[in-house]
Amino acid sequence: MRDAFQGELDAIRNGLVEMTQQVGFGMARATSALLEADLDLAETVIAQDKSIDKRRDELEERAYDLLARQQPVVATDLRTVITSMRMTADLERMGDLALHVAKVARMRYPSSAVPPEMVSTIMEMGHVAQRIVTKAGSVIASRNVAAALELERNDDEMDRLNETMFRALMSPDWAHGIQTAVDLAQLARFYERFADHAVSVAHRVVYLATGEWPGARDDEPNSYTTAN
Amino acid sequence: MRDAFQGELDAIRNGLVEMTQQVGFGMARATSALLEADLDLAETVIAQDKSIDKRRDELEERAYDLLARQQPVVATDLRTVITSMRMTADLERMGDLALHVAKVARMRYPSSAVPPEMVSTIMEMGHVAQRIVTKAGSVIASRNVAAALELERNDDEMDRLNETMFRALMSPDWAHGIQTAVDLAQLARFYERFADHAVSVAHRVVYLATGEWPGARDDEPNSYTTAN
Repeated sequence: MRDAFQGELDAIRNGLVEMTQQVGFGMARATSALLEADLDLAETVIAQDKSIDKRRDELEERAYDLLARQQPVVATDLRTVITSMRMTADLERMGDLALHVAKVARMRYPSSAVPPEMVSTIMEMGHVAQRIVTKAGSVIASRNVAAALELERNDDEMDRLNETMFRALMSPDWAHGIQTAVDLAQLARFYERFADHAVSVAHRVVYLATGEWPGARDDEPNSYTTAN
Repeated sequence: MRDAFQGELDAIRNGLVEMTQQVGFGMARATSALLEADLDLAETVIAQDKSIDKRRDELEERAYDLLARQQPVVATDLRTVITSMRMTADLERMGDLALHVAKVARMRYPSSAVPPEMVSTIMEMGHVAQRIVTKAGSVIASRNVAAALELERNDDEMDRLNETMFRALMSPDWAHGIQTAVDLAQLARFYERFADHAVSVAHRVVYLATGEWPGARDDEPNSYTTAN
């Protein structure tokens, strides 16, 4: 009985790791679609968000079934299962943020929403997003607390990129008008929130392993209000 | 035993209703702070976000305790308790969004972030936010499905205000420069997300009452990409 429970928990954990890969791919493709003004790729990301939602629903149902079948439920098991449900919610939201990036690409097609001098900043944001979601996946699989805490560094990188972005578009030399500035401000926020949710996933792993929430819980870095 | 469980569920529900009042007050004050460039009021909202986080933590702990003590847990009880945990997460996030609005007010002090001709749009967004969170509170208390579905109409109003905002700031006649445009785009998104979470709370009530999720789950209206 106990082994069956552990086996089910492992299956949910594997599902979470796969979700990190799905949303990571989604954000990588959304970034390419944005930078290359690739409409087909943007549409692919938009269509694939449904399969991320479906995966979330499946994992949630498994978690519910697991709790309903496992009686009595031990307090730590309860926490583990409910925390895994919260991770699915974070990951589903990361999928939405990739979708939002893809929608900006589609909205500005056949132009690119990103002017040439901001390409490298967006590209770097895409890379950091990729690194951070890949690490979140490893952390879920390994339950390695040290690796989880390391994600903060990538998140700091994202904050710096955000500052770079806001400095450029608020500068008196900005030559691309309001629409592009607003696009970039929103895009920066999508990447930043994506990273925030990945950090939140890692924090949940730490919380399960140690019983302590690292740092201020949900003390979301709101770089919009610190960067300018 | 059963009665004690119901009593605990009622206490959690009351806590959720109080949280809607807290975050509603928070957003109302943040809106005043923004429109009147009132630094003290902005600081009050920023400071009070901690008590919203604390309330969330308390309600979550009660929900965990309730499940741990109630053995065996019936499947519908499990769903009710876990759904109430999700509502605390929505409400906590709404508190964060009020905090973000207050931070914009603080950042632009002693100026106001909102130019005179956009004051009525932001004021209206504040009113809609107020109406929608008040209704979400009533829906939690009454579990009235019809009232829950009515929230969609307020959400449509918020979407229209968002469109008005984006049309104004993307217009060739826009006279307030990039920083104000970016501020307003972000503010519009904060109000919109606040309303989205209130709708999500109401949807959770419908889900508990009927077993069906109304509309597409988490199919978040992303007015940024539809409004321009």
